[in-house]
Amino acid sequence: MGASEPAPRTLEAAYRLGELIARAGWALLTGGRPAGVMDAACAGAKSVPGSLTIGILPTGPDGPVSTHVDVAVFTGVGEARNAINVLSSEVVLACGVESPGTASEVALALQAGRPTVLLAPTPTASAFFRTMVGRGSLHEAQTAEGVIALIEEQLGVPRWRGP
Amino acid sequence: MGASEPAPRTLEAAYRLGELIARAGWALLTGGRPAGVMDAACAGAKSVPGSLTIGILPTGPDGPVSTHVDVAVFTGVGEARNAINVLSSEVVLACGVESPGTASEVALALQAGRPTVLLAPTPTASAFFRTMVGRGSLHEAQTAEGVIALIEEQLGVPRWRGP
Amino acid sequence: MGASEPAPRTLEAAYRLGELIARAGWALLTGGRPAGVMDAACAGAKSVPGSLTIGILPTGPDGPVSTHVDVAVFTGVGEARNAINVLSSEVVLACGVESPGTASEVALALQAGRPTVLLAPTPTASAFFRTMVGRGSLHEAQTAEGVIALIEEQLGVPRWRGP
Amino acid sequence: MGASEPAPRTLEAAYRLGELIARAGWALLTGGRPAGVMDAACAGAKSVPGSLTIGILPTGPDGPVSTHVDVAVFTGVGEARNAINVLSSEVVLACGVESPGTASEVALALQAGRPTVLLAPTPTASAFFRTMVGRGSLHEAQTAEGVIALIEEQLGVPRWRGP
Repeated sequence: MGASEPAPRTLEAAYRLGELIARAGWALLTGGRPAGVMDAACAGAKSVPGSLTIGILPTGPDGPVSTHVDVAVFTGVGEARNAINVLSSEVVLACGVESPGTASEVALALQAGRPTVLLAPTPTASAFFRTMVGRGSLHEAQTAEGVIALIEEQLGVPRWRGP
Repeated sequence: MGASEPAPRTLEAAYRLGELIARAGWALLTGGRPAGVMDAACAGAKSVPGSLTIGILPTGPDGPVSTHVDVAVFTGVGEARNAINVLSSEVVLACGVESPGTASEVALALQAGRPTVLLAPTPTASAFFRTMVGRGSLHEAQTAEGVIALIEEQLGVPRWRGP
Repeated sequence: MGASEPAPRTLEAAYRLGELIARAGWALLTGGRPAGVMDAACAGAKSVPGSLTIGILPTGPDGPVSTHVDVAVFTGVGEARNAINVLSSEVVLACGVESPGTASEVALALQAGRPTVLLAPTPTASAFFRTMVGRGSLHEAQTAEGVIALIEEQLGVPRWRGP
Repeated sequence: MGASEPAPRTLEAAYRLGELIARAGWALLTGGRPAGVMDAACAGAKSVPGSLTIGILPTGPDGPVSTHVDVAVFTGVGEARNAINVLSSEVVLACGVESPGTASEVALALQAGRPTVLLAPTPTASAFFRTMVGRGSLHEAQTAEGVIALIEEQLGVPRWRGP
């Protein structure tokens, strides 16, 4: 999860994260739009043969979709789809929480009891979410590689078994 | 789309339809629960190597999922997910419309302008949906093979390109 | 519930039904848009002092709302709001089922176990919904007055207690 | 908006806020459950004759509802209803943001462009939401009275016109 108009550094981290997720054999789920972290993470994943990218779109089928999305789910429910994103993710990864959409997803993930990882959060964001009384466990990592190591060592997510 | 407790004949048709959809190279999207037409169609599709099955669940991740679903999307929005099913399908196939859930999906598909195929409908169901003033085109076929031929000849759905 | 572009007779029936619902002391819930049965029923209800009309809109707050709606709920979830309409209604009244949107609401109501009344349905619509295996009870009436009598005698809906 | 298990001080503030909202002539919309800030704010509002309270429930009609809710909307969409809450509110008031559900609503409100007021936020919460790049304006007040003054002077919300 991440902003549609993030800083350039965040975009690079999103691409790298998508690539590493795919290499590790997991499916990647994003908000599916052709913008920002969603698009960059999917592009990174699709640079790996055999990867699978799922996009949960806020629009119906007339809305724009990232060209790097394999499976597009058109919810038509607008930002209410943020709740679907977090329920459908084994682990929720926030690649920057500078946008309110991403902040809502982190909050919904903690409420829904999903393990959540903040990638290189600002001290303010880190401090805020640590105060949350949610059911989901909150983690932090400073690099895309660190996110992968954290999932492997602590969170145990099943692999995408292939079609 | 189809009932969770259909007649045995409908279950057989659903399995066959799932198998033919996968053989034709399309991805299969169902409601994802381990019951009825959803489960049988996914089982049919997964009997074909390289197939892809997507389940759009009404529940969160604690709810039951068909073992034949590759990609599970946990919406948590209950029967409101019927609207997501039809928006996310290139063609909506109703394998029996004896259940109100399936009837709602056919109606939502016609409203949303999705091409819709009724497989072996009763004369009453056929007559009712023909009276609908919707944006989607309504079609009928008597067998699973007939559904595939109709899609190939008239509806032109893109193939699942593989991961 | 009813079409956004119904026959003139249906519009008259909707206005009359809204008026009688308000006179009986019940709150009226519709899809809230400034069109067709929704708008006419709300106008009928608001011709009665002390009435309450609730509109469950498919759009966000930028979308159009009937001027006869007292309480507008902006769902932003598109046609998925049809499921919310039926869950939030003590009794679902279909004022014509010629539109797919209304047909989806009748089907969702039967699935959700809500008592459902069809006002002057066509023989085809009547025959179709009678075949449904749903949890909700299905009723018919030929006039707006008949709908009210049926609710009073058989369905026992609580009155809106006032603000 | 506020937590279902807040601190006692927050509950008192919620009751007072509900009362002042009703006295000012506005309708009060909450999440509708018989718990925490939702319940207390509705109780405060209903202590004022002629008030109107609207509850947007995550459940269907089988779920629990605050006895202080006049109009219950049963969405059945779980936490996705948080998006509906903010779209349906002229101003979003967060009475404490210690719970992830409330944090998600503040974030969704800023994204949707709704004016948002934080009542007595912690310095951490205040700092975090100030960093958000959203379309909605963010305000703070230290007391329930301060919230009302802020709305009257800066935000100009229309009154509930009565049934």
